[in-house]
Formats: sequence, structure tokens, C-alpha cells
Amino acid sequence: MNAPSSLEALIEALRCLPGVGPKSAQRMAYHLLQNERAGAGRLADALQRALGALRHCQRCNTLTEAEVCGRCLSSRRDASQLCVVETPIDMNMMEQTHAYSGLYYVLMGRVSPLDGIGPGELHLERLLARASDGVVREVIIATNFTNEGEATAHYLSEMLKSRGVSVSRIARGVPVGGELEYVDAGTLAQALRERRPLAP
Amino acid sequence: MNAPSSLEALIEALRCLPGVGPKSAQRMAYHLLQNERAGAGRLADALQRALGALRHCQRCNTLTEAEVCGRCLSSRRDASQLCVVETPIDMNMMEQTHAYSGLYYVLMGRVSPLDGIGPGELHLERLLARASDGVVREVIIATNFTNEGEATAHYLSEMLKSRGVSVSRIARGVPVGGELEYVDAGTLAQALRERRPLAP
Ligand SMILES: [Zn+2]
Ligand SMILES: [Zn+2]
Repeated sequence: MNAPSSLEALIEALRCLPGVGPKSAQRMAYHLLQNERAGAGRLADALQRALGALRHCQRCNTLTEAEVCGRCLSSRRDASQLCVVETPIDMNMMEQTHAYSGLYYVLMGRVSPLDGIGPGELHLERLLARASDGVVREVIIATNFTNEGEATAHYLSEMLKSRGVSVSRIARGVPVGGELEYVDAGTLAQALRERRPLAP
Repeated sequence: MNAPSSLEALIEALRCLPGVGPKSAQRMAYHLLQNERAGAGRLADALQRALGALRHCQRCNTLTEAEVCGRCLSSRRDASQLCVVETPIDMNMMEQTHAYSGLYYVLMGRVSPLDGIGPGELHLERLLARASDGVVREVIIATNFTNEGEATAHYLSEMLKSRGVSVSRIARGVPVGGELEYVDAGTLAQALRERRPLAP
């Protein structure tokens, strides 16, 4: 009398998507079955193919179909700089600045004790090995400026400095085009504390 | 140098989900591949099985694995009442009231000229045939009280009445437990216009 089992299974399975609760899983399932059957078929295929094809780059840890990703193999990148980001999306954001031509290491997460993710779960020994390859001269930490991103940055910087690696952190401050009136007090305080001398 | 093709294909395929734009499709893809590989595999399976197994009930039009769904086959339901709803979710909402024991017809949509959905796209001739089976005595229209739901109700009621079918509409008004202070003026105006005499 209730929902047929293959429908129930689909609704349940959709809940593995981030931020999808029971109500929206139900809505998604009906939408797919009613209006997006071709799209749903493509989604099933794409999931299976991606699960089969994608793995972590041996050098930068991002998702790739090869042993080592194209960016890590490129001779045009400056191998003396290594930028540490939380996710591949953050790496894309950095690339879009066109202001960085070094290499990356993607943590695929952040230290988050509340979610049970400590330094061990992030396999930071791989980053340490990567940063100690003799070519890297500077590790630039570009984790988020959230509590968790900051804790991760702190942990990484202690770990790397203790091994003699030179570490920097991208700057905090008022956004470009930002008006002081609309910037939160914490950001403004940091921008003040981290003020830079102007050339005379 | 950019995202590998199977990842791009997955991000693109996720956009068939309702309300998922490019940014959240990207976030979903990385989340699935990083933290939910088992869930992603189950989702691919569930999509394929649901696409293969589910079809429309020949009588009520909801999604079912059989020719005719269990509810339509039940001898405990009052076959003289037919409640018309927009979606299977609305049917579930009606069932949860435990105030209705008749049968249903699920439109699987609503008249929505802006989306190119006219009466023809909803195959209303099937509802007409269903309502004219000689057993149905009353069609209760329970489409939403949105503009589109109201237009659908209007169209249905004209169509059914012209064939001599007796039609009713569920009531609008102040929600149970609702305080007038927090009810919008349109609802309150309707509640006033549709006021009912109290027993003496
Ligand atoms: Zn790489
Ligand atoms: Zn049915």
C-alpha cells in the first residue's frame, strides 16, 4: 500500500547527497522518475564510471584518472612552491586567480574534531613527504579562514616548520572592492593587525 | 590540466537533480567521490533499478511496480470517492490525515502554461475515463492553492462538470492552530468569504 520498494530504495539512496534530507530526497526521486528519466540514466552511468575511473593523484592528492595528474606532470609549473588547499574546488579557485603557477597539495578535508577528523584521518604524512622532496622551497597554506581551516593551518604549519620547511599563509583582510561599512568587525580587526607598510 | 572527463561528466549529470546548479553539482561530486563512495554506488544501482521497475498505475497514475497499485486494488477503500492530487507526495500527505478512505488520481503535475504544460500534457482524458467508470460519485479536487494549482482545479472542475461528474474542492482557510495575527490577508479574506454557519 505504501511506496514500492525500488522507489523507497531510490529515496533512501539519494540521501547520500550532501544536504539532502528525507523530504527533498522524496521530491528528487519523483522529479527524476517523472521528468528526468534520461538524466537519471545518465547520472547512474556517470556515477559508475567516475567511481571506476577516479583515484587520488600520487603527488597532489586531487582526483584524477591517471597515476599522476596533468598539473603535477606539467613542466610549466614552478615546483618550488606548494600550495595546500582543502578541496579540488579550492584548487580551481586558486587557478582562476591566474596569480599562482606553483604546484598543489589537496588535503581532501580539514581537521575537524567534531566530525572525528583528526590529523591522522587526513594522512598528512603524505603531504610531509611531498613537501620534503628537496625541490619544494615554500609551502603556502590556503585552507579556509573558518575555525576548522584555521586549526588545520595551525597544525600544518607546526608540523612543517618542525621539519625545517618554510611555510606561509595567504593573507586575511578586507576583500578587494569591499567597503569597511559592510565588512565584519573580526575581518577588519585582522586587516588592521596585519597592515603592511606602504612604499614611501 | 582541468577536471578529468569522468568527473566532468558526473558534475554535469548531477545537474538533472532539481535545484542543483553548477556550484552545488561540483560540491556533490567531490563529496560523493571522497566521502560517499559506497553511497554513490548504491545511488547508481537504485536509479537503474527504479527506472527499470517503476511505471504509472493504470488506475490512479501514481508510480508503482505493478500494473495497478496496491491502493487501487484494495477492497477496503471507498471506490465512490476519487481525490485528485498533483503528486504522489500530496497523496501521501492526504493519507497521513487518516481522514480519507476513497481512491486517488495523481496528475503528476499541474497546468502551468509558463512551463509549457497545458491540459493536453497532463493526459486528463485518462482522469476523465477514470471518473466516468460508473462507480465514482464524487471527485474531490485537492490540487495546491497556488496559482497553478487553482488554475488546474478550475480546468478540471469545468471538464468534469460538463460530463455530469459531481466535483468538490478541499477547503481553504485559517490553518488549525493558526493565529489570525500570523495568517496572510488573502487567506483570511477567503476564510471570511467561505465561512460556515455554526450549528445552533
Ligand atoms: Zn597531481
Ligand atoms: Zn493506483
